[in-house]
Amino acid sequence: MTDPGFSLFQIALQQRAAAVETLLSGLLSDRPQGGEISRPPRLMAAMRHGVLNGGKRLRPFLVMESAALFGADNPAALRVAAALECIHSYSLVHDDLPAMDNDDIRRGQPTVHRKFDEAAAILAGDSLLTYAFELVASEETELDPHARVTLVTALARAAGVGGMTGGQALDLEAEKDQPDEEGIIRLQAMKTGALIRFACEAGSIIGNAHVKDRERLAEYGSAIGLAFQLADDLLDVTADASHVGKATGKDAAAGKATLVSMHGIEWTRQQLAGLVAQAEDLLEPFGEKAVLLKDAARFIAERQS
Amino acid sequence: MTDPGFSLFQIALQQRAAAVETLLSGLLSDRPQGGEISRPPRLMAAMRHGVLNGGKRLRPFLVMESAALFGADNPAALRVAAALECIHSYSLVHDDLPAMDNDDIRRGQPTVHRKFDEAAAILAGDSLLTYAFELVASEETELDPHARVTLVTALARAAGVGGMTGGQALDLEAEKDQPDEEGIIRLQAMKTGALIRFACEAGSIIGNAHVKDRERLAEYGSAIGLAFQLADDLLDVTADASHVGKATGKDAAAGKATLVSMHGIEWTRQQLAGLVAQAEDLLEPFGEKAVLLKDAARFIAERQS
Repeated sequence: MTDPGFSLFQIALQQRAAAVETLLSGLLSDRPQGGEISRPPRLMAAMRHGVLNGGKRLRPFLVMESAALFGADNPAALRVAAALECIHSYSLVHDDLPAMDNDDIRRGQPTVHRKFDEAAAILAGDSLLTYAFELVASEETELDPHARVTLVTALARAAGVGGMTGGQALDLEAEKDQPDEEGIIRLQAMKTGALIRFACEAGSIIGNAHVKDRERLAEYGSAIGLAFQLADDLLDVTADASHVGKATGKDAAAGKATLVSMHGIEWTRQQLAGLVAQAEDLLEPFGEKAVLLKDAARFIAERQS
Repeated sequence: MTDPGFSLFQIALQQRAAAVETLLSGLLSDRPQGGEISRPPRLMAAMRHGVLNGGKRLRPFLVMESAALFGADNPAALRVAAALECIHSYSLVHDDLPAMDNDDIRRGQPTVHRKFDEAAAILAGDSLLTYAFELVASEETELDPHARVTLVTALARAAGVGGMTGGQALDLEAEKDQPDEEGIIRLQAMKTGALIRFACEAGSIIGNAHVKDRERLAEYGSAIGLAFQLADDLLDVTADASHVGKATGKDAAAGKATLVSMHGIEWTRQQLAGLVAQAEDLLEPFGEKAVLLKDAARFIAERQS
């Protein structure tokens, strides 16, 4: 990856991430805000631990860059980006719980229930989810009420039964009852796809884009969301394959069918290239302004971690 | 309780409850809605089990009666009432988890994690919470965007770190570190008070009431929220006291200080009477229209279960 565009992307990604982290770090302080009676310090610490954990902040980046396409590189984009990261983080905090994936470590740090306790992790996740809606609905976004309520609706749909939590539930059921190819695609479109699609669509809502452009951004989001999951499944295979003769990774060990296990590595790489091309085509009308979003598509498809 | 007003109240409470349950039962069906790809049947069943459990539906009643004060006995009030019940129910589903209160039975039925499993209960709770915001933000409320976004903000604040989940976190900490009287009042105002206050305030937002009336309703909500908790703590003592010489109940057994354990039964009954009088005073300007809300205050203070 010596493409100079790619490193510009890396710099932009880091800048966006830093802005979101600064905002969240201030918002999730122990100091009561906006008429709140009190904020429990331990709960706030668990929330901060869950969200300020050095993630790549890809979803916030997508919100902010999509908004920038429509000239809306503004406080609204930053706040919606932060809200989306709260949703993504809450899902990880709950996913890591013993009753779910039972993970002790995330990004080299103890997970929230390991650093605090399970009850704190449940409440911290619930609180991050709730706070995300407060952030999006807030007049501090400086968006008109119609845009705010549109964003709340889109976010709730992306995060709920027809989106993320629905996909998580399908994923749990898939452990017992293997889905077919169509079922896997649906599961992934919900579990990881819906939030990524929302991220891109949100930018167009914030930027007050025409409905055609909103659809275009949503389609771009769907393409890169699918690519995100394919790349993840591919990494699960190739990362382990580089080790001592073990050709399969976590998914295979868990008996989990993926599109990669069904179709093989070569097919997957072709699919990924096709999705990147599709994402680039969708962004064509925006010309130079969309360079970083095109880079994001390639980054998602080609990432090594 | 032979007061005829009281039985009118009971009938109204049941009618409101039935309306909310009918709506929720339809909304939480397995059929995908509003562009959703799919809804996982087991997740939906866990959500229905968590919310359609024969609760008294006091919070929905308060939303609908408060809205009716301002002539807004309409679909918006019903939907916001249903959303609030989703929030209340999600908090119970998560509260019942082994890592929290570890309860197997609620209202004579197995709790969600006992009937399904812990992962399903976590996801069902998350999904109910998320769905509540979808409901409130929806244009199907027929409210203008400003009212909807005001409701989303107020609900998120009542349910989040400065309200319900914050209160739950304080409650967990209180098990280790006994709060003083001020601390207990704050904890209770957040844990149970905030949602009840929201219920009453929501009616005034739906009814597009003047800011003074909104404040009046919020104050009424605070008074009955405090009465609700005092009555709960009182029941914990008196219900057990009627048994074989055991003068204290769950709270005392858990070493949990309450205002009742601090000040005694007589003081508590006086406080309750004072709060009912305060609630009635606050409703005075609304005259006859507020009869059922006055009954609600007495019901909350005097209930035996």
